[in-house]
Amino acid sequence: MEVYVVIVAGGYGKRMGSDTPKQFLLLNGKPILMHTIERFSKALSNPKILLVLPENQFEYWRQLIKQFNFDISHQLVAGGAERFFSVKNALQHIPHNFTGTIAVHDGVRPLVSEQTIINAIDLAQAKGNAIPAIDLTDSIREVENGTSHHRDRTRYKLIQTPQCFNAELLRKAYHQDFCEFFTDDASVVERAGISINLVKGNPENIKITRPIDIQISEALFKNL
Amino acid sequence: MEVYVVIVAGGYGKRMGSDTPKQFLLLNGKPILMHTIERFSKALSNPKILLVLPENQFEYWRQLIKQFNFDISHQLVAGGAERFFSVKNALQHIPHNFTGTIAVHDGVRPLVSEQTIINAIDLAQAKGNAIPAIDLTDSIREVENGTSHHRDRTRYKLIQTPQCFNAELLRKAYHQDFCEFFTDDASVVERAGISINLVKGNPENIKITRPIDIQISEALFKNL
Repeated sequence: MEVYVVIVAGGYGKRMGSDTPKQFLLLNGKPILMHTIERFSKALSNPKILLVLPENQFEYWRQLIKQFNFDISHQLVAGGAERFFSVKNALQHIPHNFTGTIAVHDGVRPLVSEQTIINAIDLAQAKGNAIPAIDLTDSIREVENGTSHHRDRTRYKLIQTPQCFNAELLRKAYHQDFCEFFTDDASVVERAGISINLVKGNPENIKITRPIDIQISEALFKNL
Repeated sequence: MEVYVVIVAGGYGKRMGSDTPKQFLLLNGKPILMHTIERFSKALSNPKILLVLPENQFEYWRQLIKQFNFDISHQLVAGGAERFFSVKNALQHIPHNFTGTIAVHDGVRPLVSEQTIINAIDLAQAKGNAIPAIDLTDSIREVENGTSHHRDRTRYKLIQTPQCFNAELLRKAYHQDFCEFFTDDASVVERAGISINLVKGNPENIKITRPIDIQISEALFKNL
């Protein structure tokens, strides 16, 4: 079944303490974003891949493609000011009569396993949506009015991507107005009144955000 | 100022898919637990270190000490069936007239930075308690009645150790009856009616629980 994959890479590199946006940093000698795209290309048969980048990074990305002889077909889409608007732009580039599954993935999660991708897409095809989640290994506290309270960590899940949705459902959810509360696609879809299904993520599927995440990813890369 | 450090290592190794309890696995060629003890020995001047281990691992630990010529002074304490009872046992081995600070640390967090240790102890000395915490980088959901709800991740903190407390306060809290809800010392002390202070942890300070955590730790070890 045809699947659209929207890979969102909006980073400007500030948090990484680097001039290079994190999606272009090298992991095992190759830009992170290329690893991410390869994961989907390997896990799925002929996925349609949309890569959302800030427009002023298009030229740099095209140079990288030449430099690394990167040959996985994908379409570039201009990013918005917030992740919400980036995904919304990408949805405009998917045929309006497409009724299959759309997977939205963070460009800086190159260590997603094929199993996580397949599990999320399969469940979304069966139930309308699915997102990968993992258990917490640390204790967790909630901060309230200047103090913090212990919470039962078994009640919480850390959320990853790809977040997979029936195309019609996702389009409808993205008709909502933007809200600060939206940090991922599931929060947008839940706000539209839909219950979200969880699948098991893989612990290696970290989001490369902090400088130490590059070192962690290098170590985990050998695992996959 | 004199500080007691209680290092709790109760693992039997089941979760790691290994016969060796995780606290004895090698990190950079040396048992994890030795790295953990060294961190405190380096960060503090002459800390009194109590190491809590299942009693049936004492002999193995003594063999490791010889094998690795490990020479940091510490006292062994027998662990209990739950972390709560392990800490409670350790408190019995601290002089009853000691009124300084007690730091309780997970044996399987060998990558705690000296700065995290010092910050937590300093704040505990000033305010009675302090525990290290870090921000979430993933989205988070709370599971309720078979479904899950998006939560504002800026309201939550992931909790690390060392958790540091005024000795009298900690002793008093550990007079409470055991409760399933207790996953760390802060949860025990909070239950006794005390507000908990957070300090900034270091992101490398992960708890070695899953097989991939060893690989992550090897990579991060070079950082510290």
